[in-house]
Amino acid sequence: MIRPFRMRKKDIGAFPGELIYEGDSSAKKTKITVFDYDQNTFSEQEVTPEECFQFKNKPTITWLNIDGIHDIPLMEKIGRHFEIHSLTLEDILNTQQRAKIEVYENYVFIVVKMLKYDHDTAKVDIEQVSLILTENCVISFQEKEGDVFTPIRDRIRQGKGRVRRMKADYLAYSLLDAIVDNYFLILEAISEALGKREEELTDNPSYEILHAIHKLRSEIIYLRKAVWPLRDVTANLDRGEIELIGDDTRVFLRDLYDHTIQVIDSVETFRDMSSGLLDLYLSSISNRMNEIMKVLTLTASIFIPISFIAGLYGMNFNPAASKWSMPELNTPYGYVMVLGVMLSIVIGMLIFFKRKKWL
Amino acid sequence: MIRPFRMRKKDIGAFPGELIYEGDSSAKKTKITVFDYDQNTFSEQEVTPEECFQFKNKPTITWLNIDGIHDIPLMEKIGRHFEIHSLTLEDILNTQQRAKIEVYENYVFIVVKMLKYDHDTAKVDIEQVSLILTENCVISFQEKEGDVFTPIRDRIRQGKGRVRRMKADYLAYSLLDAIVDNYFLILEAISEALGKREEELTDNPSYEILHAIHKLRSEIIYLRKAVWPLRDVTANLDRGEIELIGDDTRVFLRDLYDHTIQVIDSVETFRDMSSGLLDLYLSSISNRMNEIMKVLTLTASIFIPISFIAGLYGMNFNPAASKWSMPELNTPYGYVMVLGVMLSIVIGMLIFFKRKKWL
Amino acid sequence: MIRPFRMRKKDIGAFPGELIYEGDSSAKKTKITVFDYDQNTFSEQEVTPEECFQFKNKPTITWLNIDGIHDIPLMEKIGRHFEIHSLTLEDILNTQQRAKIEVYENYVFIVVKMLKYDHDTAKVDIEQVSLILTENCVISFQEKEGDVFTPIRDRIRQGKGRVRRMKADYLAYSLLDAIVDNYFLILEAISEALGKREEELTDNPSYEILHAIHKLRSEIIYLRKAVWPLRDVTANLDRGEIELIGDDTRVFLRDLYDHTIQVIDSVETFRDMSSGLLDLYLSSISNRMNEIMKVLTLTASIFIPISFIAGLYGMNFNPAASKWSMPELNTPYGYVMVLGVMLSIVIGMLIFFKRKKWL
Amino acid sequence: MIRPFRMRKKDIGAFPGELIYEGDSSAKKTKITVFDYDQNTFSEQEVTPEECFQFKNKPTITWLNIDGIHDIPLMEKIGRHFEIHSLTLEDILNTQQRAKIEVYENYVFIVVKMLKYDHDTAKVDIEQVSLILTENCVISFQEKEGDVFTPIRDRIRQGKGRVRRMKADYLAYSLLDAIVDNYFLILEAISEALGKREEELTDNPSYEILHAIHKLRSEIIYLRKAVWPLRDVTANLDRGEIELIGDDTRVFLRDLYDHTIQVIDSVETFRDMSSGLLDLYLSSISNRMNEIMKVLTLTASIFIPISFIAGLYGMNFNPAASKWSMPELNTPYGYVMVLGVMLSIVIGMLIFFKRKKWL
Amino acid sequence: MIRPFRMRKKDIGAFPGELIYEGDSSAKKTKITVFDYDQNTFSEQEVTPEECFQFKNKPTITWLNIDGIHDIPLMEKIGRHFEIHSLTLEDILNTQQRAKIEVYENYVFIVVKMLKYDHDTAKVDIEQVSLILTENCVISFQEKEGDVFTPIRDRIRQGKGRVRRMKADYLAYSLLDAIVDNYFLILEAISEALGKREEELTDNPSYEILHAIHKLRSEIIYLRKAVWPLRDVTANLDRGEIELIGDDTRVFLRDLYDHTIQVIDSVETFRDMSSGLLDLYLSSISNRMNEIMKVLTLTASIFIPISFIAGLYGMNFNPAASKWSMPELNTPYGYVMVLGVMLSIVIGMLIFFKRKKWL
Repeated sequence: MIRPFRMRKKDIGAFPGELIYEGDSSAKKTKITVFDYDQNTFSEQEVTPEECFQFKNKPTITWLNIDGIHDIPLMEKIGRHFEIHSLTLEDILNTQQRAKIEVYENYVFIVVKMLKYDHDTAKVDIEQVSLILTENCVISFQEKEGDVFTPIRDRIRQGKGRVRRMKADYLAYSLLDAIVDNYFLILEAISEALGKREEELTDNPSYEILHAIHKLRSEIIYLRKAVWPLRDVTANLDRGEIELIGDDTRVFLRDLYDHTIQVIDSVETFRDMSSGLLDLYLSSISNRMNEIMKVLTLTASIFIPISFIAGLYGMNFNPAASKWSMPELNTPYGYVMVLGVMLSIVIGMLIFFKRKKWL
Repeated sequence: MIRPFRMRKKDIGAFPGELIYEGDSSAKKTKITVFDYDQNTFSEQEVTPEECFQFKNKPTITWLNIDGIHDIPLMEKIGRHFEIHSLTLEDILNTQQRAKIEVYENYVFIVVKMLKYDHDTAKVDIEQVSLILTENCVISFQEKEGDVFTPIRDRIRQGKGRVRRMKADYLAYSLLDAIVDNYFLILEAISEALGKREEELTDNPSYEILHAIHKLRSEIIYLRKAVWPLRDVTANLDRGEIELIGDDTRVFLRDLYDHTIQVIDSVETFRDMSSGLLDLYLSSISNRMNEIMKVLTLTASIFIPISFIAGLYGMNFNPAASKWSMPELNTPYGYVMVLGVMLSIVIGMLIFFKRKKWL
Repeated sequence: MIRPFRMRKKDIGAFPGELIYEGDSSAKKTKITVFDYDQNTFSEQEVTPEECFQFKNKPTITWLNIDGIHDIPLMEKIGRHFEIHSLTLEDILNTQQRAKIEVYENYVFIVVKMLKYDHDTAKVDIEQVSLILTENCVISFQEKEGDVFTPIRDRIRQGKGRVRRMKADYLAYSLLDAIVDNYFLILEAISEALGKREEELTDNPSYEILHAIHKLRSEIIYLRKAVWPLRDVTANLDRGEIELIGDDTRVFLRDLYDHTIQVIDSVETFRDMSSGLLDLYLSSISNRMNEIMKVLTLTASIFIPISFIAGLYGMNFNPAASKWSMPELNTPYGYVMVLGVMLSIVIGMLIFFKRKKWL
Repeated sequence: MIRPFRMRKKDIGAFPGELIYEGDSSAKKTKITVFDYDQNTFSEQEVTPEECFQFKNKPTITWLNIDGIHDIPLMEKIGRHFEIHSLTLEDILNTQQRAKIEVYENYVFIVVKMLKYDHDTAKVDIEQVSLILTENCVISFQEKEGDVFTPIRDRIRQGKGRVRRMKADYLAYSLLDAIVDNYFLILEAISEALGKREEELTDNPSYEILHAIHKLRSEIIYLRKAVWPLRDVTANLDRGEIELIGDDTRVFLRDLYDHTIQVIDSVETFRDMSSGLLDLYLSSISNRMNEIMKVLTLTASIFIPISFIAGLYGMNFNPAASKWSMPELNTPYGYVMVLGVMLSIVIGMLIFFKRKKWL
Repeated sequence: MIRPFRMRKKDIGAFPGELIYEGDSSAKKTKITVFDYDQNTFSEQEVTPEECFQFKNKPTITWLNIDGIHDIPLMEKIGRHFEIHSLTLEDILNTQQRAKIEVYENYVFIVVKMLKYDHDTAKVDIEQVSLILTENCVISFQEKEGDVFTPIRDRIRQGKGRVRRMKADYLAYSLLDAIVDNYFLILEAISEALGKREEELTDNPSYEILHAIHKLRSEIIYLRKAVWPLRDVTANLDRGEIELIGDDTRVFLRDLYDHTIQVIDSVETFRDMSSGLLDLYLSSISNRMNEIMKVLTLTASIFIPISFIAGLYGMNFNPAASKWSMPELNTPYGYVMVLGVMLSIVIGMLIFFKRKKWL
C-alpha cells in the first residue's frame, strides 16, 4: 500500500523555527509524566507543565515523558524553559523526520521511529519519538500514549539492572535500546508473513497472494526507509565525540549499533526475499498458463481434425447426382474405415504430443 | 513523457563566458524588484537596471530579484556592475544547469531548481533560480515571474521572524528553504498520484493506467535528477568553509540539509514504489490472461469432444449399404446412449478441471 | 525457503546484559572439554565448570570448548570467573548475531557462523560459534556438539604443524581457519546443485526445478548474509591493532582474509548464476508456450476453414424449394470440386505458415 | 547494435612502447596544420613534419594539429623531436583508449573521445583525440580530418574571446570544451530519438520499435562508456596539481567539469528512460495479447456451445427406430425452443463476460 | 554453463601452509626452463631442480619458468631453497586463488589468471600463473605447458626492446603485460560472439540462441570474477610502495593499470550487452507469440460464427412437424440469404480486425 505522504503542514508562510504541528491532531490531551531517581531515591508522578520545570536543575536523574505534541503553546513553554533551540522544537513537531542526531551546546537531540506491527492490517505503524538528553535529564516526546518503555519503567521502579546506578546518558540509551529491540518483533512478524506467503504460493498462486506480497514489499520499503538512517544515529553516538555520553555507557552503545546493523541486514534480506517471491509468483503464473494451454491444445488438436472428417461425411451431396458424388457413403465398410482413420489420427496425435513431452 | 533535451543553445562558435540565453525566449520584459531593509528600515520598489546599482554598497540588506533573464545586454550590465564573473553569467543564462554552488572571491553563486507540480498535466514544472550572495546583498535570477517567495516577502514587510534581524546569508538561506519546502508539495502530489494509480490497478488494470504509471515514473526520474545535486549544495553550505555565511545561519543550513535528505529519501522510495506498481501491473495482466485462457480452455475442452460425437452421428453413411454402416442410428436407445456418453465426458472434464484447481 | 526469523527471545523487559538463551533449548547437557598444552606437554580432559577455572592463569595454552550454551547459571559462573563482560555473554547467548569482533581490555571476542550443508534437505545449516581469546587461553562456545575442529584436535594431540609451537592467538586463528575452510565445502555443494539444475533446465524445464532454483537462491541469500560480515572480522584481525595477536600469526590472518574474500566472491557469482537460471527458466517457459501455441494455431487454422465448408454443405436446405437452394448438391462434380477447394486451402495455409517460419 | 571490439592489433610479439597503429588504416595522408600566435601576431599554415619542429621552442603559442596517425615513422619522428614518451605514442596510436590524463615531467597527455551522432544510421560515431600540452605548445592528434574545432580556429584567427590573450593551457581547455560542448548535440539527438520512439510506442508497439529501442540503448551504453572516464580527466585537471595549468585557466576547467557531470547525468537519465521504454513495450505487448485473447475467447466461448447444440440436432438417429430416438425433431416447437436455448446461452455468456469486465 | 567449483582439496585435516596440490593432477612431468641474461650475455636451458638453485645468487637476471606444480616434494625443495614462505607455496598450489599481490620481506608474490578463449566450445579457459619476484630473479609457476610468453622469450633471445637492458622487475612486468594483452583477444572473441548472437536474434529467435546467450553470459560472469581483482593488483604495483620495483618500471605499470581498467570496462559493457540480448530475446518471443495468436484469433473468430450458422441449418428438425419447424429450409432464397449473412459476418469481422490494427 502506498502510504500518503503527509506534507510538512507548515504552510509555506511559516518561517523557519515557527512551530506548527504536522502530525495527527486528533490526539488527546498532552500528558507529562516524571521519573525522578538516583541510586537511592525514586519518585514517579504525573505533572503539569509548570511542575515539571523544577526538575531541570535537580542533581537527580529526571526522565520527563511527554505524550502528545500537538499543544503548541505548551511545547513552546517547555522549549523556552529547557533552552531548546526553536529548530529542534520544529523537528519534534514535524512527524515526517528521518531518524537523526544533532548535538547542541547544552543538549543532544535524537529523533527515531518507534515501530509497531499491526497483525490485522499487516501494516507497520510508525510513531516518531524525540529524545533530548541534557546533563542529568532525558525528555522524551511521543505523538500519542502507548509505547515500548514499560520494562524500563519497571526497572527504574524496582531498581533492577544498571539504570538506577548510572547517569542520564544510560537512560537515553535504554530508551533507544527498547525501541530497537522492538524492531526485532517487527522483523519476526514480517518473516512469518513472508513464510506464509511462500507456502501459499507453492499451494495455489492466486491473485490475492500477489497483492499480499505487493503489500508486504511496500511495508518492507517503508521499514527500510525508517531503519537505514538509524545506522548513522547509533554510529554517531558510539563514536565518542559527544561529551554528554560517558565511557561506561559507550560500550552499550556499541551493542546498540550492532543491533541496528542486524536489523538493517535482515530488512535487506527480506527485500531480496520478497523480490524472490514476486519472481516465483510470475513464474508460477507462466507455468500455470502453460498447463492450461497444453490442455486446450491437446483437446483441440486431437478433435478438430476428426471433427472435420465427421463434418465431411455429413455433407448432403446427392449420391444420385453422379458416381463422383460421395460414393463412400454407400460403400459397405465406409463407416468403419472412417472410424479407423479417425482412430489413427488420434493415436498419431498422442504419439506426437508424447514425443514433445507435453503429455 | 520524455522531456526534450534542450541543447545548450550557445552555438559551437561561442567562446566560454559568451552570453547566450538558452531558455524560453517568449518570456516577458525583465522585471527588477528591490527589497532594502535592516532591522529598523524597509523599502520595496520596482526599479530600472540603473537604479538598482545604488544598492550595491549600501550597508542595509538588499534583495534584488530579477524575473526574466533573456535580455542579454541588461544581464551584462548587471554582471559588470556587481562584478560577476562571465562564467557565472553564462551559467545563469544556461537553464539546463545542475544545482550547484560556486564560491568566488567576493560572492557565492548558487543554482537550484524551483519545482511546481501541475495537477492537470501531471507534470513537474522545473524553473531554474540562480542566487548571488555578497556581503550584504542577495541577487536572485528567475526565468519568469511567479515564484514561491511570497511568504518571505511578507515576513520582510511585516518584520516577522528572524529575517529582518539577520544578515544577507540568512536571506539567501530563507530563499533556498522556501524552494526546498515547496518540494514537499510535489512529493505529496506524487504520493497521491501513486496511491490513486495503485487503487485503480487493484480495481481494473487498464492500459491507460500503465501509461499513467510510466508517465509518473518519468517524472520521478526527472525529479530525482533535479534533487540529487542539491544534496552537495546544501552539504557544502553547511560545511562552514564559506566566509560569507555566519555561524548563526549555519544551524539553519543544517536543517536545510536534513530537509534535502528527506526529499531525496522520499524520491527514492517513490522510485521503488513506481517500479513495484509496474511489476504489479504486469502480474495483473498475466493473471487476467490466465483467467481468460481458463475460460477458453474450459469451454473448448468440454464442447469440442462432444461436438465431435454429434458430428459423428451427423454423417450420412447409408445404413442401407451394409450392417456395418452406422448401425447405431437405428438402435432404439442409440440417441439416449450418445447423450449419456456426452454427459459423462462433460462430467469427467469438470472433475479433471476441479482437480487442477482451474474451477 | 524463507527461514523463520527467530526473535531475540529476551522479553522486552530484560535489561541490557541480562542473560537469556535465545537458541534451541532442546540441546543436551553442557559439555566442557579442555586441551592444555605447550610445546612439550599436552593433556586433554572433560571437566566440570569448577575444574576448568584452574586453567585461567596457567602459563600453558588452554583451549576450553563449551558445547551447549543454554545453561544460564553455568554461563554466568564462567563469565564471572573469566571476567567476561555481561554484554559479551548476552551476545554469546543470542544466536542471531552477525559475525563480529570486539576488543575488550583483557580479551578479544569473536562471533562467527559455522556452516554445514545438508545434502538431503539442500539447506545450509547455520550454527553460531563464539570465541574468547585471552593472553594464553581460547574459550569456544558452540550451540551443540559436533563441529569442524576435529583436525585441529588431532594436530594438537600429535604435535603436528605449528599449533603446539605457537601461542593462543594461533589457536584462535586455527579455529577460524577451520570454519572458513568448511565454507568451501558448502560452495562446492551449491555449485554442484546449480550445475545439476542447469542441466535439468536444458532437458525439461519443469515446475519442480523452478522451486528448486528458488530454494537454492534463498540459501545463497542466507549464506551471503552469514558470510559478508566475516570480511570485516578478518580484516580487523589482520589490521595489526589488536595487541593479543602477534606478528607471527598475522601473516596467517592475511591468508584467512584472502580465503574470506574468495568465499564472498564465489557467493556473489552464485547469486548471479542463480538469477541467470531463473531467467533461463522463464525464457524456456515462454518458448515452450510458443511451441504449444504454434501447434494449436496450425491445427485450428487449417481445419476450421475446411470444417466450415463441410458444415456448409451439411445444411438441409431443400433443393426442391428453388433452383437457388443449394444447387451444388446435385452437380455431378460438386463433391470433387469441394474436396479440391479444401485441399487448396490446406496447401495455401501450409505455404503461409512455411513463409512465417512457423513450420 | 553490438560494436565489434577492435583488438589492440599490436600482435602479442610487440614490446611495450612499440608503435603499431590500431585504427582504421584507410585514412588519408597525414596532414599537419600549425596555428602560431600571441596577443599581437598570428600565422596559420600547413607544414611538413620537418617544418613543424621549429615551433617547439618559439615563445609564441603554437597549436599543431595532426590529422591521421597511421604513418608510424612520421609519428616516431614527431615523438622524438617533441620528447614524447614511447608509451604516450603507443597510447595515441591505440584508438581503443579510455579517456585519461597523464602528467609527464615536461608535458601533460590527455586522451578524449570526440563524438558525432549520425542521424541516418542513428549511431554515435566515436573518434579519439589525443592532446599533448607543453609549456607553450598544444599538439592534437586526430584519426582523420574533420573535427569540432572550427569555432576555435575562427576565434584565434579573429582574435575574438580570450584565447589569444591567454596561454597554451587555455588553448587545450578550449579544445576540450569544444569536444564536450559537442556531446550536448548528441544528447539532444538521443533525447529526440527516445521521444520519437515513445510516441510510436503509444501509437502502435511494432517489432521495429523494439529493435530501434534496443539499438538506442546500445548506443547509450557505448556513450556511457565513453563519457564516464572523462569525469576523472576533468576532475584531475581542475584539482590544481598540474603545474602547466595556470590559475586563470582553472576557473574554466571547473566549468568544464560541471559540463561533464551534466553530460553524465543526462546519459544516466537516458539509460533509465530507455529501460522504461523497454518495460513499456513489453507491457504493451502483453496488453495487446490480452486484447487478442479476449476476442478469441469471447467468440469461441459463445459459439462453441451453441454450435454443439446445432450439431446435436444434426445427428441422423432414425426417429423411426424408437420413441427415444430424437423425439425433439418431430415436436412442433422443437426448432423454436432450440433457438431459444441458444439465445439464452449467448445472453448468459455475455452477462458473464460483462461481469468479468471483459467486455 | 556453470563451472564446477573445485574445492580446495586440502582435506580439512591439513594445517595451514601444508602443501596439497588442488589442480588437475593429470598434468605431465614438471618442466623447468631457465633464461639467464644481462645486457650482454644470454643463456637458455632446461634444467633439473638442483641445477636451478645456482641461479639464485647470480648477478644476472634469471627467469625460472616452472610448468606443472603437482610434484609437491619438488615444490617444497624449490620453496626451501628460494626461501619462499609456506603460505605462498600453498597459494601457488591452490589453483582457485583470486588474483592478488603479497609483499614479503625478500620477494613479491603475484597470482594472476591466464585466460584463453576456446572458439570451439565457446568457453574461456582459465589457468593460474604465480610469479615470484626477487632482487634479480623471476620465478613463474604454471599449471601446465603452453603459455602466452613466447614473444617475451623471443625478445630476450634477440635482445629486442627494453627487456635485456632492464631489471627483473621489468621482466615481471613484461610477463603480466603479456597476460593482460591476451585478455584483449578474449574480449574480441566475446564481442564477436555477442554480435553474431544479436544478428541471429534479429533473423530468427530460436531456443538455441537463448542457450548460447546464457552460456556467453556465464562466461562473462566468470571472466569478470577473474578480471576484477587484477585491478587491485596492478594498482598496488603502481603505487610505488614496493621496494623491489624501480621507478623506470613504474611508468610501464601505470600503462598496465590502464589496460586492466580498459578490460574491466569492456567486460562490464559486455555484461550490459548480454542482458540486453536476453531482454531482446524475451521481447522477440512475446512478439512472435502475438503474431501466432493473431492468426489463430482471426481464423477462429471469422469461421466459428459462420460455422455455427451452417451447423444450425444442418439440424434435422422435421419441417413437416409444424410451420415453426425450420421454415427457412423451404424458402426459395433461404440458401442465398444464409450465404449473404455469412459473407456479411466475414466482412464485419475483417473490418473489426482492421480497426484494431490486427491486420
